[in-house]
Amino acid sequence: MTLYYSPGACSLADHIALHEAGAKFDLVKVNLKSHTLEDGRSFLEISPKGYVPALQFDDGEVLTENIAILTMIADRHPALMAPGHLGRYRLLEILAYISTEIHKSFQPLFAPTATEQDKNRAKETISKRLDFISSQLTGPYIFGEEMTVADAYLFVMLLWSDKNGIALPVNLKAFSEHVRARPTVQVALKHEGLI
Amino acid sequence: MTLYYSPGACSLADHIALHEAGAKFDLVKVNLKSHTLEDGRSFLEISPKGYVPALQFDDGEVLTENIAILTMIADRHPALMAPGHLGRYRLLEILAYISTEIHKSFQPLFAPTATEQDKNRAKETISKRLDFISSQLTGPYIFGEEMTVADAYLFVMLLWSDKNGIALPVNLKAFSEHVRARPTVQVALKHEGLI
Repeated sequence: MTLYYSPGACSLADHIALHEAGAKFDLVKVNLKSHTLEDGRSFLEISPKGYVPALQFDDGEVLTENIAILTMIADRHPALMAPGHLGRYRLLEILAYISTEIHKSFQPLFAPTATEQDKNRAKETISKRLDFISSQLTGPYIFGEEMTVADAYLFVMLLWSDKNGIALPVNLKAFSEHVRARPTVQVALKHEGLI
Repeated sequence: MTLYYSPGACSLADHIALHEAGAKFDLVKVNLKSHTLEDGRSFLEISPKGYVPALQFDDGEVLTENIAILTMIADRHPALMAPGHLGRYRLLEILAYISTEIHKSFQPLFAPTATEQDKNRAKETISKRLDFISSQLTGPYIFGEEMTVADAYLFVMLLWSDKNGIALPVNLKAFSEHVRARPTVQVALKHEGLI
């Protein structure tokens, strides 16, 4: 299994989740500007979408999209799944929220065409949505005492928020420090050159 | 089971999928501006997020987000699930793409603060992403011969595209007509006052 990633991109969530799952996997860095791999191959031949994460299985099949990859990791490693009889749907619900309402809202902050007003509006939107997540936290992690794959995704969004000067609610700041201290997270951050 | 919807909103995908699944469910219309139901109750008491879809189970629990609701419907009615050993993840992959890359890209077209330039840029983005979906279609439906819950979601995105003057690739135009002709879709469109 090979995870195609870019340092600090949202693929960091999958990187962390795979370590949390104790999975065996290789890592291949993608240059998202040139769409090439370090050995010169074209990433577009792996994934025509051109973005990370992409997870290649040993039979060659490639799965893209955080929601799909993270859910697959949780299905295979149920310790990382949300609890309760609706657990898998509660997990999807929060992954969808993080992905569509938070992750996508960062777009103006990465877009060369965005104005300062666009950027400020994006920051306000993200801030409001982090407040919502903050109100949902039921323990040190989103679903209580145990970490799920959704926490890895949220952690990356908080890294991005911090980098863009978006203040975090107190419990999300504590969450972020708590996740960062996990040995798996340290390994992933080091590998991606982020610490 | 009760589906909270707004006519022509993305909740139409869940509305169609529930009919395709032969599920028994009630429908409650939400006024998205005032966040109220037709009987005057506040929708925010059902879902603090304030947007549709929201699916309320008979035990009172409420599930939000298209990706979560549609996947739940497909899990319970496997005829609506994508085929193959990675079917569940292929379904999530396309649902995530539709949701994050297409659905969210409509935002400037609904935003009162968006400029004409923002709107035109959004249309171009949506157009490119529909081209990608178009290249992925493997039959009359996304995954071949049989309809899945993802087709219901894509159908709604094509309705929105059409309404906003975004030209559809030939195979997506055919897809849209094919889906529209299904009796379940006709029932849902009539109920929502769209035909």
